[in-house]
Amino acid sequence: MVNASLVSPPSKAIFYETHGPPDTVTKIIELPPVEINANDVCVKMLAAPINPSDINRIEGVYPVRPPMPAVAGYEGVGEVHSVGSAVQGLSPGDLVMTYPPSPGTWQTHVVKDKSSWHKLDRGTPVEYAATVTINPLTALRMMEDYMDLKSGDVIVQNGATSMVGQCIIQLAKLRGIHTINIIRDRSGSDEAKEKLKKLGADQVYTESQMDVKNIKSLLGKLPEPLLGFNCVGGNAASLVLKLLRHGGTMVTYGGMAKKPITVSTSYFIFKELSLKGFWLHKWISSVKTEVCRETLDYLLGLIREGNLKYDMEVTPFSEFHTALDKALGKHGSQPKQVIKF
Amino acid sequence: MVNASLVSPPSKAIFYETHGPPDTVTKIIELPPVEINANDVCVKMLAAPINPSDINRIEGVYPVRPPMPAVAGYEGVGEVHSVGSAVQGLSPGDLVMTYPPSPGTWQTHVVKDKSSWHKLDRGTPVEYAATVTINPLTALRMMEDYMDLKSGDVIVQNGATSMVGQCIIQLAKLRGIHTINIIRDRSGSDEAKEKLKKLGADQVYTESQMDVKNIKSLLGKLPEPLLGFNCVGGNAASLVLKLLRHGGTMVTYGGMAKKPITVSTSYFIFKELSLKGFWLHKWISSVKTEVCRETLDYLLGLIREGNLKYDMEVTPFSEFHTALDKALGKHGSQPKQVIKF
Repeated sequence: MVNASLVSPPSKAIFYETHGPPDTVTKIIELPPVEINANDVCVKMLAAPINPSDINRIEGVYPVRPPMPAVAGYEGVGEVHSVGSAVQGLSPGDLVMTYPPSPGTWQTHVVKDKSSWHKLDRGTPVEYAATVTINPLTALRMMEDYMDLKSGDVIVQNGATSMVGQCIIQLAKLRGIHTINIIRDRSGSDEAKEKLKKLGADQVYTESQMDVKNIKSLLGKLPEPLLGFNCVGGNAASLVLKLLRHGGTMVTYGGMAKKPITVSTSYFIFKELSLKGFWLHKWISSVKTEVCRETLDYLLGLIREGNLKYDMEVTPFSEFHTALDKALGKHGSQPKQVIKF
Repeated sequence: MVNASLVSPPSKAIFYETHGPPDTVTKIIELPPVEINANDVCVKMLAAPINPSDINRIEGVYPVRPPMPAVAGYEGVGEVHSVGSAVQGLSPGDLVMTYPPSPGTWQTHVVKDKSSWHKLDRGTPVEYAATVTINPLTALRMMEDYMDLKSGDVIVQNGATSMVGQCIIQLAKLRGIHTINIIRDRSGSDEAKEKLKKLGADQVYTESQMDVKNIKSLLGKLPEPLLGFNCVGGNAASLVLKLLRHGGTMVTYGGMAKKPITVSTSYFIFKELSLKGFWLHKWISSVKTEVCRETLDYLLGLIREGNLKYDMEVTPFSEFHTALDKALGKHGSQPKQVIKF
């Protein structure tokens, strides 16, 4: 006989029934208890971030989306609340994060198959475990999958204050790789520069500072960069292309300025630049789960050792829409928003 | 004692002393005889083409240029007139082409080291030998160096009426590879389409014909193209990107529209397109001369067998400036201009 009594607690969730502007289509609702099957694990969520891809999923513009209606969110961390009868290796009280990332993490209790959870060392800071998959993993893969970078090599990136940008600076520094970082012109840019330099950035320039006749003079004693990362588009992407050395590669992983990338013919023919893109979703679906989990454990190790850190702002779940507004850029540049349940 | 009498005949040459618009800075001048050293070969030129790179060299905008003042031209064919005392394997009357291509072919007599000449089968049509290096070799390398194309695969290209475009159609056809060809909207485009189809083009569209909601519907039964070639830029490049399949590559080798290439962020991230460039000069300087010569002999073989042909217009040297005006596009779309000495 099935144990019909094994169900989750009722859950509060960020829910949307139609695609559209996230601040209008999302609402906090209460969901009834759901059945916990033999291989399921019910997790009381502790924290989950608001990533640009979460916003794009709600807007309906992201290529991979959950069926509608849906609970939002794609990564997060929690504590095991109860486990199905066939679950081994996870027990109530264990700290776990979603892995692989999957839809519906913005709710107080999440029930998913045991294969969707990754057990964590108890010493892992919760807000970091909640955010390690999408952004730090992107930074690591981009550092490793396009070029065999060696100590002394140089990377150039725009959007350097983003979470990926901060991770790239630190992962590069750990490998002896130099970074040239491009940030937006805005009030507080001096402070932003100092922050990035403290993380290990070799050089930080605002876009307007790079508007010089001989852009290569900004390199000082650094060699020309082999690899560039673009998460902005428009002029900020052009600056990366300009600074790259002959034969360099620019990898695009975001488009925060919502402007396309414009490239002159001669950059392709005579400067022999290559332009590519990175999509974490694709990487995750193309490698073995164990490989991904080992990579995450490496990043989590760096975090626990204090070698990888980034700005976050933690907001209680009840104030979700305040955090969402910040993530939507309504209040200017803000650190990564993390919801605490 | 040096044989001081071994000199070339006086030569007529297309000469320029300053960079600028080719139709104003070039003039036909008479050059005095030059000494033929032990390893030199003096060639009575028969034919040489006007390539876009020749024009760009005269304008001063091409990255690799001869020192000034200079005789223009970079490839060509001729008949051996006389050889230096140490030259073996080449005799007066032999048909030769420049290889590797080098500056100064637009003159009636050219003296170069024997290593700069490639001996030809007497049955080789002169105007093809004059033009085989820059354009057909570009077409072949682009077909082979970016992807392991198999019979049944599809290529998309713009600028399909160019000499490279015509060669790509035929080289693809020989390998069972389909081509989708984009041409400009202009009077005579129906005739141009028929010509390309006769060469083996599967499909030919003008840019405006591709302005349809579902561009992939134009493919009919063909699979989506893996590889695209762009020698135009602007909208014509965007059409190539649109038609490419997920994970495809676009190779840029020219910029006839003098407009940059504009790419949306999502093409890099979600469509996972790669953009690269091809520069023949780089290929030639990176592989062994024997490899290049074998490749040229393969192309020359195809030409002699009638499997590789392209439009040319042959103009006497005395009417050089008429041919130049046509090459500069002053009279609309024209076939490749070849000067006959």
